[in-house]
Amino acid sequence: MPGPVASSAAIRLQLRSWPEVEDYLKTCKGVIVPLGSTEQHGPTGAIGTDALTAEAVALEVGRRTGVLVTPVQAFGMAEHHLGFPGTMSLQPATLLAVIHDLVLSLARHGFERIYVINGHGGNIATTKAAFAQAYGTAADRGLASAGALRCKLANWFMAPEAMGLARELYGDREGHHATPSEIAITLQLEPSLEAKQRPLPEAAPAGPIHGPDDFRRRHPDGRMGSDPSLATAEHGARFLEVAATALAADLERFLLDPQA
Amino acid sequence: MPGPVASSAAIRLQLRSWPEVEDYLKTCKGVIVPLGSTEQHGPTGAIGTDALTAEAVALEVGRRTGVLVTPVQAFGMAEHHLGFPGTMSLQPATLLAVIHDLVLSLARHGFERIYVINGHGGNIATTKAAFAQAYGTAADRGLASAGALRCKLANWFMAPEAMGLARELYGDREGHHATPSEIAITLQLEPSLEAKQRPLPEAAPAGPIHGPDDFRRRHPDGRMGSDPSLATAEHGARFLEVAATALAADLERFLLDPQA
Amino acid sequence: MPGPVASSAAIRLQLRSWPEVEDYLKTCKGVIVPLGSTEQHGPTGAIGTDALTAEAVALEVGRRTGVLVTPVQAFGMAEHHLGFPGTMSLQPATLLAVIHDLVLSLARHGFERIYVINGHGGNIATTKAAFAQAYGTAADRGLASAGALRCKLANWFMAPEAMGLARELYGDREGHHATPSEIAITLQLEPSLEAKQRPLPEAAPAGPIHGPDDFRRRHPDGRMGSDPSLATAEHGARFLEVAATALAADLERFLLDPQA
Amino acid sequence: MPGPVASSAAIRLQLRSWPEVEDYLKTCKGVIVPLGSTEQHGPTGAIGTDALTAEAVALEVGRRTGVLVTPVQAFGMAEHHLGFPGTMSLQPATLLAVIHDLVLSLARHGFERIYVINGHGGNIATTKAAFAQAYGTAADRGLASAGALRCKLANWFMAPEAMGLARELYGDREGHHATPSEIAITLQLEPSLEAKQRPLPEAAPAGPIHGPDDFRRRHPDGRMGSDPSLATAEHGARFLEVAATALAADLERFLLDPQA
Amino acid sequence: MPGPVASSAAIRLQLRSWPEVEDYLKTCKGVIVPLGSTEQHGPTGAIGTDALTAEAVALEVGRRTGVLVTPVQAFGMAEHHLGFPGTMSLQPATLLAVIHDLVLSLARHGFERIYVINGHGGNIATTKAAFAQAYGTAADRGLASAGALRCKLANWFMAPEAMGLARELYGDREGHHATPSEIAITLQLEPSLEAKQRPLPEAAPAGPIHGPDDFRRRHPDGRMGSDPSLATAEHGARFLEVAATALAADLERFLLDPQA
Amino acid sequence: MPGPVASSAAIRLQLRSWPEVEDYLKTCKGVIVPLGSTEQHGPTGAIGTDALTAEAVALEVGRRTGVLVTPVQAFGMAEHHLGFPGTMSLQPATLLAVIHDLVLSLARHGFERIYVINGHGGNIATTKAAFAQAYGTAADRGLASAGALRCKLANWFMAPEAMGLARELYGDREGHHATPSEIAITLQLEPSLEAKQRPLPEAAPAGPIHGPDDFRRRHPDGRMGSDPSLATAEHGARFLEVAATALAADLERFLLDPQA
Repeated sequence: MPGPVASSAAIRLQLRSWPEVEDYLKTCKGVIVPLGSTEQHGPTGAIGTDALTAEAVALEVGRRTGVLVTPVQAFGMAEHHLGFPGTMSLQPATLLAVIHDLVLSLARHGFERIYVINGHGGNIATTKAAFAQAYGTAADRGLASAGALRCKLANWFMAPEAMGLARELYGDREGHHATPSEIAITLQLEPSLEAKQRPLPEAAPAGPIHGPDDFRRRHPDGRMGSDPSLATAEHGARFLEVAATALAADLERFLLDPQA
Repeated sequence: MPGPVASSAAIRLQLRSWPEVEDYLKTCKGVIVPLGSTEQHGPTGAIGTDALTAEAVALEVGRRTGVLVTPVQAFGMAEHHLGFPGTMSLQPATLLAVIHDLVLSLARHGFERIYVINGHGGNIATTKAAFAQAYGTAADRGLASAGALRCKLANWFMAPEAMGLARELYGDREGHHATPSEIAITLQLEPSLEAKQRPLPEAAPAGPIHGPDDFRRRHPDGRMGSDPSLATAEHGARFLEVAATALAADLERFLLDPQA
Repeated sequence: MPGPVASSAAIRLQLRSWPEVEDYLKTCKGVIVPLGSTEQHGPTGAIGTDALTAEAVALEVGRRTGVLVTPVQAFGMAEHHLGFPGTMSLQPATLLAVIHDLVLSLARHGFERIYVINGHGGNIATTKAAFAQAYGTAADRGLASAGALRCKLANWFMAPEAMGLARELYGDREGHHATPSEIAITLQLEPSLEAKQRPLPEAAPAGPIHGPDDFRRRHPDGRMGSDPSLATAEHGARFLEVAATALAADLERFLLDPQA
Repeated sequence: MPGPVASSAAIRLQLRSWPEVEDYLKTCKGVIVPLGSTEQHGPTGAIGTDALTAEAVALEVGRRTGVLVTPVQAFGMAEHHLGFPGTMSLQPATLLAVIHDLVLSLARHGFERIYVINGHGGNIATTKAAFAQAYGTAADRGLASAGALRCKLANWFMAPEAMGLARELYGDREGHHATPSEIAITLQLEPSLEAKQRPLPEAAPAGPIHGPDDFRRRHPDGRMGSDPSLATAEHGARFLEVAATALAADLERFLLDPQA
Repeated sequence: MPGPVASSAAIRLQLRSWPEVEDYLKTCKGVIVPLGSTEQHGPTGAIGTDALTAEAVALEVGRRTGVLVTPVQAFGMAEHHLGFPGTMSLQPATLLAVIHDLVLSLARHGFERIYVINGHGGNIATTKAAFAQAYGTAADRGLASAGALRCKLANWFMAPEAMGLARELYGDREGHHATPSEIAITLQLEPSLEAKQRPLPEAAPAGPIHGPDDFRRRHPDGRMGSDPSLATAEHGARFLEVAATALAADLERFLLDPQA
Repeated sequence: MPGPVASSAAIRLQLRSWPEVEDYLKTCKGVIVPLGSTEQHGPTGAIGTDALTAEAVALEVGRRTGVLVTPVQAFGMAEHHLGFPGTMSLQPATLLAVIHDLVLSLARHGFERIYVINGHGGNIATTKAAFAQAYGTAADRGLASAGALRCKLANWFMAPEAMGLARELYGDREGHHATPSEIAITLQLEPSLEAKQRPLPEAAPAGPIHGPDDFRRRHPDGRMGSDPSLATAEHGARFLEVAATALAADLERFLLDPQA
């Protein structure tokens, strides 16, 4: 574990040069990959919510641990949200290929612990499938790191500490999509989003997720049982704090514990 | 809901003719698809465990509800078990295509509720990804049933009632792979498997799942914290009973509740 | 050649444990993979006919030779039957990937002779294409067994002995789909199917096979020149016998003859 | 059927303009697609044999019938010949996509009868699989011609008349690859090939076809039981004649017989 | 053309809600998609250069025109840079699928002018191929916008004004990869990058681009004939200005000129 | 460089035997692959123009240099021309796979310099993408030639000498599709095409290329600003001469210059 750094600039892969990465790999084989989505988040939420939150959590985890953070993959699997304008989705087979290729690129350089910090529930299934595909390819290609390669998916919004805080602040008005917890983080990150906040009618309850037409019929304004009007930027700061704390600890175990 | 039938022969799609299916569709748009895997189940467990159990639960749910049951897809995503002889795995991208094609075939005929009864944790991610892909294709092809199509994944071993019984019978010796609960069902289904049962040393603890070499290193005999020697055929009968009861009720909600 | 076994339980891969397969591979590198289809078989035939017959022949060949039999892949390439309710088809590209992945799984463990017993004409082309793709991948991955890997497709219904018996029993009423010979085997395997048997009008003659709409237009009840009402369970026993005899001999040559 | 034309220039799609094709489609919906391969043909045979022969037969069939002939797809599925320098092969999945796309292009313009004249046994399986895939796509895309679309594979070397002539001229020295019959046609087409002709030792007998290494081990000089030294250009003219006669009649049935 | 906005927050799709996008589409069918890469940029350049610059130019073009800007796709086709640690590449087939899916998502909502602002030469070929694939799919799916859909690739670094400025400032020391012009923009965007700037030895000359090993052999430190030490943040501001001016004008033509 | 040969028969791969190719590889690792397209070329141009011209240039380059020439891949990426009858197009993903497989076949045999002579602008992007994909696969498969493999795309119509001659002969009536320069070569190759030549009205100006419907709307007769009526066979001979001269020199550098 490289240890905390003063600013996120020090751990953003985008701001490193290749010799710096080469040096980094001499002492640490871990890397954080933020994964988001670009999809409707209710009548008042930002379309970029999942990418913005995943990247923010990832950068804060990186800052605390010194582990490199790659750019965010801002487009994820959001097929069920395609009934709402602005949603941009990769089909599952496409996202599978994207995650596969990114893992293989990193494994080729000698990274052995790929820690994906994810901001969107719809990415979970495909990302896990992609990991399984990537392990196979790494072995098939005879990569030196193939045997040691491990990928882990960390969904910040499912960290017990984050879920606990959401329950404490919002009770059952947290809901399941366009939740106040994620909206709160975006308010913290982008103050201009405050202007969209307004009281909203009771949201349609969360239901099962099928195709985009079915989704829009069930959830006419895009929310799933949530009340994002409860969110505040100050809440957002607290969510960032608890999520980063939880995931930094999880990442530490992932990197240091040979059984992790 | 067609209602209970006397024998599973009445609800096995394999034993129906096409005019019988045509008739069936006039009153019921639901269908059960059992999904298994063919993979190592520890030093004493049957390689077919996941397909045998999924099919048995599916047939019993079908018998109780009268809902048609398709043949089992016996090969699933078992890449991480490929370090053990006998495991046969579809790559994630392949299983995704299989489930996609099966859902599309059924949707073309007018089936609107596809209920996949699954016996293998490794299939979950890919199957969910496949559902998302299938909804998109159904719409792209302009299928009449596209708007009404709903797929649901039901993992029998994760039904609360089944997990409760496992906890009651085995406590923490249930483990996570080659579990006594699933082995119990196979003993009930195939008495010849009894001959393999024997006391086993303490299993390696369940850990995270990565590639096949990593898996075998962590779990040298294939078990993940389980003690399958505790399983009995009589237990198996009870697991079948609770799983079928739980899933039949779940299927009923899926078919009858417009919000399901 | 391991030699005959008392019951099919002894050669079903599903009922073996991985150490048993490991042992098996010390003396035999052969394995049987049954391949079927799930598709309409005329107004009185079972939708599962091709999978049921392929599996039954495979198990009987396994019993006589002691060669392991994997689970049946019950879904095949049946695109042209999709005009009839109940048909479930994998697109050719999907079935190609399935067979490819199964062969590669087996080759990885050291199996060198993959003997596919097939019950459906529509699978032939795609399965052969998949073999060619699999040989390439086995070499590309550097599998130890790549150079020795051989796959063979055995269509039980095209064994000269089976075709001879069909001609003897049914003459030109055997036809080409939903044939009395395959229906006979299903009657032998599943007595409940007897109830569907009834006299049928003259079937539309067999013609070329194109797309599903064209197929249904040519063959309105799904039959291609066949009279399945001639089938009896007793015939079915004879077909199983001659098919198993023929394929067991063929398998023996495949395993023992270095030129095979 | 447009009827015979004076020279092949009149029926080569390559030499037509699009308005001429538009006119053609007003009276004929048929088209011939020659399909070859680029692969070793023994120590004295031309690597282009399969493409040269398929194209020559196709042009002669086109000349006699007036049916348009597309350019030859000169690369086919020749994976098993990759052990010999000069072989260029498309993987099965690739050739499947090629044939699929070509059929769909033609169907989009209103062609309803696609007649593929093939010169290579290794293409058969994949081409048939591609037809099945293409029918599905034509329907999925809602092409006007989808319902009427029919594809047929015609392997000139398997026409009974061609096989009869080969038997008559060469008996069992015809063999199965780098056969005198196909070499004869190339001698007729390209007199410079005569210079390669020379007596050859007895060829390795034809065996089953598996991967490229296995193939080369069995057939060290690339021939499968054939004696191409028997071929003469005059024979080639006769093979062209009988193949074209047989396929022209077959094409006529395909175009004119609504049951074909 | 919506017209200039005060801050980039107003045109970032990530910060819009779906009803805002719905409103936007009533008056403008255009959208900007920034496309970058994550790859080595010489011994002193930032790995994120191509994504950072593409996004910065895109946001400035958006600010001046009021046209919406989607999140940047930060991973592109950088296979030839995989010999340097830190490079993350999508295979061409994967990037093709990504661009295809993003275009289709936007077209589904009614966007008709997709303007991709690209920061990496290696993306050009694949992106153009993806556009062709996307037009076909849009038509195949019967999208309302299919007939009107137009995609355009704009490489900011190839705008004549940007190339002119580079020539003026750097002459032939601009080179072809890790160029001072692109590095200059990153210095302007991220002042912390200044610390990496240092004099560098003469770079290897630009050569043709083949595989990653060949690339590293030719260009041992990653540069292709460039001298990034000449770059300054002030230059970067000028490059942003000229690139944005040029592309804004180009975008205006693309949106307003029916012949564009 | 093998050096000039008397006739093209000596360098056509189709007319070589595999031992001849084996010998060739002892002294030369280069090979020419002609790539064309089958697509409308205006109201008077031949649909095969791009394949005919690419093959003719390739054979002439081969004749002058002694470098082997493979068969032409006559079908390319012509999606945008699919609005005109007779166009046959491979989707970009398909052409990518074709070029990939052909390069890999050649690399397997030890060819290290693949020189693709292309006759169609629409192939450029996809072919370049395919090269990048092929380099990766060659390395992944561990091919002996992987490190030395280089592919180059040579578009004869973009050779400065060819463009100069076109400007000299036709000025701005050369246009961008169905150009007099390419038509001239076809007249030289196929005198029967002369009969189609006739004065044409002013062509629609060249515009950007999007989907097939858009293309046909912009260019109702298929031409893009060109006046093919200016073409003569004598011009064609000159274009063949200058293109072959330019590309032979370029090929020589590619084969002999270690920096090429």
